[in-house]
This record gives sequence, structure tokens and C-alpha cells, in this order.
Amino acid sequence: MKTTALVIIDVQKGLDSPALGNRNNPDAESNMASLLTAWRKNGSPVIHVKHNSTEPNSSLRPDLPGNQIKDVVKPLTTEKLFEKTVNSAFIGTDLEKYLRNIEIQNLVMVGLTTDHCVSTSVRMAANLGFKVWLVDDATATFERVSYNGNSFTAEQMHEINLASLNGEFCSVVSTPDAMALAN
Amino acid sequence: MKTTALVIIDVQKGLDSPALGNRNNPDAESNMASLLTAWRKNGSPVIHVKHNSTEPNSSLRPDLPGNQIKDVVKPLTTEKLFEKTVNSAFIGTDLEKYLRNIEIQNLVMVGLTTDHCVSTSVRMAANLGFKVWLVDDATATFERVSYNGNSFTAEQMHEINLASLNGEFCSVVSTPDAMALAN
Repeated sequence: MKTTALVIIDVQKGLDSPALGNRNNPDAESNMASLLTAWRKNGSPVIHVKHNSTEPNSSLRPDLPGNQIKDVVKPLTTEKLFEKTVNSAFIGTDLEKYLRNIEIQNLVMVGLTTDHCVSTSVRMAANLGFKVWLVDDATATFERVSYNGNSFTAEQMHEINLASLNGEFCSVVSTPDAMALAN
Repeated sequence: MKTTALVIIDVQKGLDSPALGNRNNPDAESNMASLLTAWRKNGSPVIHVKHNSTEPNSSLRPDLPGNQIKDVVKPLTTEKLFEKTVNSAFIGTDLEKYLRNIEIQNLVMVGLTTDHCVSTSVRMAANLGFKVWLVDDATATFERVSYNGNSFTAEQMHEINLASLNGEFCSVVSTPDAMALAN
């Protein structure tokens, strides 16, 4: 019996917008694709999550081309897709119910962005009782300016956010380590 | 009509354990106390949240003295207390239902720790539709070692985690700014 689902969060074309600034982990999508290939090959559950933004200026609005999932991790019609309007993949969706129904307790989570939708979904998955592995090099985020005006690189944002999650909400692993979980 | 609740998260004696390492914002508790005084004076809703850890080695287990809320922000018997076993104050509690019942849409959130229970509760509050202000100098966290062995100071953990939250899930404000919200 397959026990571990791959959850791919918000890997959408609109997140390539230059307006978002510099990003880390340029190979994140190809690592996600490697994991997706492994999960499909093993017949393990794959969950796609897509963000339908309600923000007026977001490139992820459902009426814009940026809403589309990137081709590199495009869902098959036979794979489950959950659409959401907030950061957490568990709010306003049937994701929790679906995972309970298929008796999945373990989640390997990847996607965009590390500190917004991925972190929020990982935290909530863990607090709902799922065991979570978060893949360091199959997630990525953007540079940000703090509330006090200090600037941080995308890599700083990524690493410190993962440091907050690791051990408390999930195990942070690499793509090669995560491949071994495609049971 | 009072529109804004003060939510004080996990300010418990066990979080003074030296085993947790160095902390930032030593004045966080006195800032929380100032906010608590202002909320009480205005008769605005105060919500206390306490963590009852189920981890074998946690100082926040309900059978240990470390579980107690610190005297500086000790709840009055007339104030609402929600007890939880995970990071989010909204999972396994009636907090959301209670806030809807008293028609509160706005939350000023403070407590410990910035990147674990506070961040998780802020994210979920925002995703559930509440408007959130997070008080920079009335929250604090600890130094942490990353999954890859890199060490970060408590101040680095605090500031970058707030940079991820600000503008996406909440407005990060100072204690003096938050005082003005005790309507």
C-alpha cells in the first residue's frame, strides 16, 4: 500500500514575473519534476495545489495566463488538483478530507514560495497530524524587504524559514533523500 | 462596540528554560503587559492561549510547573483562555468559533515564539479571514541551528520570520502603534 503523497504547491507561471525580484533555487522546478516522475512511476499519490488569487494586482488571478501551472509539473487529468484562494492548501479545500479518505499520513511537500504558501501549508499539515518532509532544493522564494526597511536575499529568506520549520513541523530533506520516500 | 481582540500566545514559564538557548527581545513580556493593561482598561476582548505539550521532554507539559502562564500576563478568571496541543491556536480549539460569535474581525497578536506558535497562529488567522497586527517587540524567539548546520541568532530568526509575514499575513507594528488599536 502506498503511504506517502507528493504535494506540489503553487508552481504557477505568474511566479516568473520579474516584479517579484530575485529568487533562489533556480533548479527547484527540475527537482520537483524528478520527484513527480518518481511518484508517477511508483503509482504513489500526487496532489497538485493551485492558487487562485483574489488580489486585484496578482499575476495568479484565475482569469490571467499566470494562473496556469508550469508545464514542468503539469497535472495529469487523472491526478488530484486542489484550488485555493489563501496560502494554506488546507483552508477552503477538501485536501484534509481527501487525504484521510485515501488513508495517507505522510506528505512530501514542494513548491512555491518557501515562506508563504509552502510554510503555511507545511505548518497546518503538521498541526493536523500529518508527517511532513519538506524538500529544501524543490522549494524556493524571493528576496524581501522587512517591515523595518532591511533587505534580505532570497537565500536568506529560504534558509531561515526552513530553520524555523525543521524539527518542529517537518523534516527538511534534499531531493535525493525525498526520492527514497516514493514508496 | 469593541472590534479588536488582543491575543497572547504561549507566554509560559517553561519557555525560560536555559536549554532553549539565547532569546531576543528581553522586554517582550513587559510590552505584552502594557498592551494587556490597555486592553483591560478599554474593556476590549483579551484572549489567552496556552500550550499543553504532548512531547515527552517539553517543559510545557500540563503536569509541569513550566506549563503555567507567566505572572506578568496572567489571565483574569473573567478572561477567555484557549488551551491547545499544537502550534496553531486555531486547531483543536474553539477560538475561531468564539471570535465569530463575539463578532471580532481584528486581532493584535503577541507572544512566544515568533517563528513557531505565533507565526503559525498569525498565518491561520489571516487565512481564516481575520485582519491581524503582529507586534514586533511583544514577540520573541530563540537562536536556532539550521538543517544544514548553520547557526542563526534569535534576532535573525525573529526579523526574517517577520519579514515573511509582514504584508502577506499581517501588519507588523511596534507596541506604541499597537496601543492605538485598543479601541
